[in-house]
Amino acid sequence: MRTRLSIEQYLNGILANDRLILSQAITLVESRRTDDRALAQQVLEGILPHSGHSIRIGITGVPGVGKSTFIEAFGTYLTQLGHRLAILTVDPTSQRSGGSLLGDKTRMETLSRNPNAYIRPSPAGDSLGGVAHHTRETILLCEAAGFDIILIETVGVGQSETVVHSMVDFFLLLMLAGAGDELQGIKRGIMELADALVITKADGTNQASANHARIEYQNALHLFPPTGTGWFPPVLTCSALTGEGITNIWQTIQRYQKLTIQNGYHDQRRQEQQLTWFRTLLRQRLERQFYEQPGIRNKLAATEEQVRKGTLLPLPAIELLLSQHPA
Amino acid sequence: MRTRLSIEQYLNGILANDRLILSQAITLVESRRTDDRALAQQVLEGILPHSGHSIRIGITGVPGVGKSTFIEAFGTYLTQLGHRLAILTVDPTSQRSGGSLLGDKTRMETLSRNPNAYIRPSPAGDSLGGVAHHTRETILLCEAAGFDIILIETVGVGQSETVVHSMVDFFLLLMLAGAGDELQGIKRGIMELADALVITKADGTNQASANHARIEYQNALHLFPPTGTGWFPPVLTCSALTGEGITNIWQTIQRYQKLTIQNGYHDQRRQEQQLTWFRTLLRQRLERQFYEQPGIRNKLAATEEQVRKGTLLPLPAIELLLSQHPA
Repeated sequence: MRTRLSIEQYLNGILANDRLILSQAITLVESRRTDDRALAQQVLEGILPHSGHSIRIGITGVPGVGKSTFIEAFGTYLTQLGHRLAILTVDPTSQRSGGSLLGDKTRMETLSRNPNAYIRPSPAGDSLGGVAHHTRETILLCEAAGFDIILIETVGVGQSETVVHSMVDFFLLLMLAGAGDELQGIKRGIMELADALVITKADGTNQASANHARIEYQNALHLFPPTGTGWFPPVLTCSALTGEGITNIWQTIQRYQKLTIQNGYHDQRRQEQQLTWFRTLLRQRLERQFYEQPGIRNKLAATEEQVRKGTLLPLPAIELLLSQHPA
Repeated sequence: MRTRLSIEQYLNGILANDRLILSQAITLVESRRTDDRALAQQVLEGILPHSGHSIRIGITGVPGVGKSTFIEAFGTYLTQLGHRLAILTVDPTSQRSGGSLLGDKTRMETLSRNPNAYIRPSPAGDSLGGVAHHTRETILLCEAAGFDIILIETVGVGQSETVVHSMVDFFLLLMLAGAGDELQGIKRGIMELADALVITKADGTNQASANHARIEYQNALHLFPPTGTGWFPPVLTCSALTGEGITNIWQTIQRYQKLTIQNGYHDQRRQEQQLTWFRTLLRQRLERQFYEQPGIRNKLAATEEQVRKGTLLPLPAIELLLSQHPA
């Protein structure tokens, strides 16, 4: 059943931190119905002046690294400090829809009952671009609803880490001690995007190997080119079980926040992110207009096959396509 | 003075490895004149069946790493083995035009007099996309002219490494011993693109620190996610002065070549590169058609400024633009 409110009802509800209305607003923003779009944009424009005042933290890591457990421990700690926390996921591979909410709430049992935490999984998306677009808008809605920390979780496969990196202030990469097979899921290039690495499950018999891994990664990161912000990504360890290291992670993020606000990088990064978002959407829109022309999909597929095989060069291929389908 | 030949003259000249005609064909392909484009494409289509049969090697590293000296030593060694070598550069920052040829020839004095080596700098480009497009076409022309090894050099600033990576079979990153300040020029993420790292200037008093750096980097690379090809990027040392390590680099590249041809990755990588090239060009073309509409540049700049500041959301910004300028 679709529930649509008036603009004022959405705005007042969000600003009053009414979770039901916040959830409905997010659903509105995620809607693909044409008649929902105008309303969604008006709601977003209305809350825009109230957005932006949070710290946005991206969290990634391969399946098995203990992401949910970490977020449970870290999130609970943050709410104990008096923070209000929204947790969003970016997962274009997910085929979850109705069941997803339950799934995520089960994954984070304690947080899902915490009045200062709000968990919102991304809908089953048909493209990463679409999911990412809605997540960016959802961040704004959550900020307007007074959440001062936004955690954005990604599943750690494919391109989603890069996309999450492009919408957060701080990017945290969770790793397991004992590199090797466990790393299969992490895409190359992701390690260098991280503002901090955290070795999880540093407890019990794992403690020693976690410390060893911490030193190894720290040495490796020293060889990486500097980030250009004056920040050197540290490698930390933590245990969601014992709580060890959680405080340190939060202090690290705060140190980063303070440094980058002072040296102007925080604002610069956010402004660049806005611009990248705009340009990506504009490009998608222009491409969509082209690709949606009748009959073009089959012709494009045939053309691409020839280009892939190397029997047709890109430029004449494009001329051919455009002569039949002027954009 | 413009020299334009007939298609047959170009084709016959290139296939006969006439360097003057090869150079004229590259100039034709680089030309921005509309009346040159059709001829250039016909030449490219004519040589297409004769292209593809080389190993394409990308070389990058920060200024000061000794790139020219390395290419001199490595290239001379390859020609001594009986190979025929073309050396292309990708450098969108270059403002060189006529003088560039001389500049590059002076940089590589021995190779420039070597009958089995052909050096061709990229023209002063107005965009990396344009330079990259022409370099891809120039690779095909050089292959048709019988060069069996193509070295593509990039200056190691900005995005050019990623672009070069997208057009080669093997990507070599030159590094200096003593990480730190020297690394400032290397963009983050580039290290993980490398198929091999080479520590240069491993001679004299530098020998020990080069060996030390080799071990450090090798340990660091072990922590990187695997490439998915079954290949583990090695770290090598070399001296262009003594020639030490040069043979090893060439053997490494050949090992990689053999492995990836056997496991199918070589063909797969090339096919993906073709497709990426096509899609990039198509996107650029669609964007260009949009951006070239009269009056749009100023309006776009004003819109982007609002988006950057966060006072206008991307989606309404795009609606506004498109309502005035339907693509």
